[in-house]
Amino acid sequence: MQPRLITLEGGEGAGKSTVLAQLRETLESAGESVVCTREPGGTPLAEQIRDLLLSPGHEPPTPETELLLMFAGRAQHVRGTILPALASGSWVISDRFTDASYAYQGAARGGDRDFIAELERRVVGIVPGMTLLLDVPVETGLQRVRGRGTADRIESEAHGFFDTVRRAYLARADAERSRFRVIDASRPATVVAGEAVAHLLAYRETLL
Amino acid sequence: MQPRLITLEGGEGAGKSTVLAQLRETLESAGESVVCTREPGGTPLAEQIRDLLLSPGHEPPTPETELLLMFAGRAQHVRGTILPALASGSWVISDRFTDASYAYQGAARGGDRDFIAELERRVVGIVPGMTLLLDVPVETGLQRVRGRGTADRIESEAHGFFDTVRRAYLARADAERSRFRVIDASRPATVVAGEAVAHLLAYRETLL
Ligand SMILES: Nc1ncnc2c1ncn2[C@@H]1O[C@H](COP(=O)(O)OP(=O)(O)OP(=O)(O)O)[C@@H](O)[C@H]1O
Ligand SMILES: Nc1ncnc2c1ncn2[C@@H]1O[C@H](COP(=O)(O)OP(=O)(O)OP(=O)(O)O)[C@@H](O)[C@H]1O
Ligand SMILES: [Mg+2]
Ligand SMILES: [Mg+2]
Repeated sequence: MQPRLITLEGGEGAGKSTVLAQLRETLESAGESVVCTREPGGTPLAEQIRDLLLSPGHEPPTPETELLLMFAGRAQHVRGTILPALASGSWVISDRFTDASYAYQGAARGGDRDFIAELERRVVGIVPGMTLLLDVPVETGLQRVRGRGTADRIESEAHGFFDTVRRAYLARADAERSRFRVIDASRPATVVAGEAVAHLLAYRETLL
Repeated sequence: MQPRLITLEGGEGAGKSTVLAQLRETLESAGESVVCTREPGGTPLAEQIRDLLLSPGHEPPTPETELLLMFAGRAQHVRGTILPALASGSWVISDRFTDASYAYQGAARGGDRDFIAELERRVVGIVPGMTLLLDVPVETGLQRVRGRGTADRIESEAHGFFDTVRRAYLARADAERSRFRVIDASRPATVVAGEAVAHLLAYRETLL
């Protein structure tokens, strides 16, 4: 477990990027050094893998290819960005991390849970100290991002796909209550961010 | 086991591409339909993954990333190119396949053998009917390709790396004698190709 690695999870339009900016400000105001990153992505090579994964212009990956590309990028992200930042004493806040593969490539695409767990063990090897799950009804989240221009390959999935993702995230949070904080993200952005910041500050207290 | 899937393995400059052309001609002259392909690569997406793997201009992948990118491309190659071709009755000849990951990402880069075997079982699921291993001393092979312009990322490895690859291939051939044919590829190209063609014709006889 990496105490200073915080991850944000949730479906499309849950408000992850919005909350991330608030968490960064909170930590920086407290004098902490913070590296903000995202998945898929987080290093130049991992961002190129992200493009292969998400750009609707490419040949669509099979579910097996999608799963391995996600973990290939994550392996790079962990070694190239996350571990060096943690080693230097920074906090790291990642917009999505391994939980997303259990929800998307596992539950929603049918990838085998044990195989995903083995990939996690073999090529990730680290677990966040705290994970904030921004939970929102699928339709609410999709409405929020609808104005944002063309959807990427995964954003173009059907409603049922995202519903499976949402239920998978909630089940993970339920199974790992000490790591997860579930936030009702259907409320106004300031309320959601405020609750996220409160969780972060309370969590940081436990580390001091 | 896929009887009509033939793979060519061997180090840099062993003569795989040269032999492949001869095998194709042999089968086509016998009235067979043949799909020739290669790894990394073999579909548009897998060729983009190949570029991430081999282009020296990119951020170098970690060993874990390299392994997963190889299998991501292979998962795509199997489903997008190899299985459809086999299903239509074609022969498929691939310039490298899974054995290369055991030799390069496994033996030479230190990837865990059991993990590679699990990736093979989970995302490849098929084994060639016959594999021709073109065996050549490392220095001979490297001299052959030296004239070819800039080396890619893997071609730029040191002599010891390729020596490990060579020994790993020979060990695999020794462990799976019914699938492998080892060809001494230090001899003139016509002799090497002639022996490869003879193996192919003898193998095809066993299928009729
Ligand atoms: N609680 C909220 N209530 C209403 N709108 C919100 C809320 N949080 C964020 N938004 C708005 O919804 C949109 C999506 O928010 P944001 O980009 O933070 O979500 P996200 O979870 O990062 O989405 P994605 O999964 O697409 O990256 C933005 O326009 C943002 O301003
Ligand atoms: N048996 C041989 N003797 C001498 N030269 C050869 C022989 N086989 C191939 N060559 C030449 O060596 C070079 C490399 O051959 P080829 O491209 O077929 O090897 P390869 O195994 O496909 O290499 P790579 O691993 O780089 O793809 C070519 O210029 C080819 O003409
Ligand atoms: Mg976002
Ligand atoms: Mg070649």
